[in-house]
Amino acid sequence: MNILVTNDDGIYSSGIFALWEVAKEFGQAFVVAPASQKSAVGHGITISRPLFISSIKRSNGFDGYAISGSPADCVKVGIKRVLHKKPDLILSGINLGSNLGNDIIYSGTVAGALEGSMQHIPSVSFSVDSFEPKSFETSKYVIREAIKFLLKQNIPKQVSLNVNIPDCNLDQLNGLKITLQGGKYFEDDFNSYKDPKGNRYYWIKGETVDNDDSFDSDSFAVKNNYASITPISFNMSDNRIFKKLKKTIK
Amino acid sequence: MNILVTNDDGIYSSGIFALWEVAKEFGQAFVVAPASQKSAVGHGITISRPLFISSIKRSNGFDGYAISGSPADCVKVGIKRVLHKKPDLILSGINLGSNLGNDIIYSGTVAGALEGSMQHIPSVSFSVDSFEPKSFETSKYVIREAIKFLLKQNIPKQVSLNVNIPDCNLDQLNGLKITLQGGKYFEDDFNSYKDPKGNRYYWIKGETVDNDDSFDSDSFAVKNNYASITPISFNMSDNRIFKKLKKTIK
Repeated sequence: MNILVTNDDGIYSSGIFALWEVAKEFGQAFVVAPASQKSAVGHGITISRPLFISSIKRSNGFDGYAISGSPADCVKVGIKRVLHKKPDLILSGINLGSNLGNDIIYSGTVAGALEGSMQHIPSVSFSVDSFEPKSFETSKYVIREAIKFLLKQNIPKQVSLNVNIPDCNLDQLNGLKITLQGGKYFEDDFNSYKDPKGNRYYWIKGETVDNDDSFDSDSFAVKNNYASITPISFNMSDNRIFKKLKKTIK
Repeated sequence: MNILVTNDDGIYSSGIFALWEVAKEFGQAFVVAPASQKSAVGHGITISRPLFISSIKRSNGFDGYAISGSPADCVKVGIKRVLHKKPDLILSGINLGSNLGNDIIYSGTVAGALEGSMQHIPSVSFSVDSFEPKSFETSKYVIREAIKFLLKQNIPKQVSLNVNIPDCNLDQLNGLKITLQGGKYFEDDFNSYKDPKGNRYYWIKGETVDNDDSFDSDSFAVKNNYASITPISFNMSDNRIFKKLKKTIK
């Protein structure tokens, strides 16, 4: 099995190293990842500038390509200019910090997987619910289980799985849970500054608001030490509203 | 009515000027838009750098704020630092070039509106199906009709409308049509180059593939001279697959 591995924290992240270690248990792993931190780039792609590519070596045989673009760029370049064909599987992560609720829309990690599903390639994004995870033992267990689950189930290739992993010890993990994108959001605001010339600038700040405790929500699962698996689609049509509105226009 | 106007082509685009002209027929229009071209930034936001803001004046009383970030940044800054409250309506566009099918995922124009719906503000994105539209007469007609339609219908605030306008004369327009995100996609590839030092770089290229002629698809509507209105949601959960997979895990 050919596996394309990417992320949004960049090719030198501890998370992508752990993901690569598991990926190579399942097949040949090709790492194509951003050269630098690309958090919150969403599904942006680079169309007005060129993309630079360089060969990277880390320890224990980890090698790959660093790209001067977004995770979605990495998947596109990986397919067309590294593998020269579609891989059998795309894995994105492990993101340091969860991607739950509204985060999904902003996440470069999720976009890496979603780009795969847009090209009809089975794809999974992985995030751990901590910026400084204790270890990757639980994450690695969940990645193995999620890949086995994906290979076993007949999931349409246009559906991507967004996996969030609690930062708990393996013996505290309650299992995997299939979930829906919940209502967690970021209540943002801006600090205001002036530069030495007097020009105004802002810096985003904010707080996570996570009060969606509905049983099926992604963040409720993670809070209860389940690994959350949310099937997501790049088709954003709201079918219910479509049917309702269609009746209003002849 | 307070109306926040943004786009992804930048504050000096002809498209945002035309949108502003219609917006001010409906209320007070506040323009907060990217300082430069931001096509294909998707729903990226700026979290690791500051955002600069500057006051802009164009002809005929058009004034607004230019932001050194993405359309989603502009909506966030517009709410928190320009209006200091949520507007009654957010309009994004007019994008020069359609946002149909898979384009929706990459589009900064759509993200501008989607950011509004994430904050429970009625929001519409507008794109015209040409990089060099003949005129904005048809677009302006469609914008008026779409705003009236939005105000009349009881559309949930978490749903955004993605409007695509054919580049035809007004007397050739067949009307408005409620549609679904269709299968149009970009078959991308990369040209390969070396810089003067011998470093490899790539530039994305590609061709639009548009063979989804299903009756309800967004691009089929535009091809047939209808203005396409697609209700879209930032909740990417695939409910059908959720229900199917839920049965497989206890």
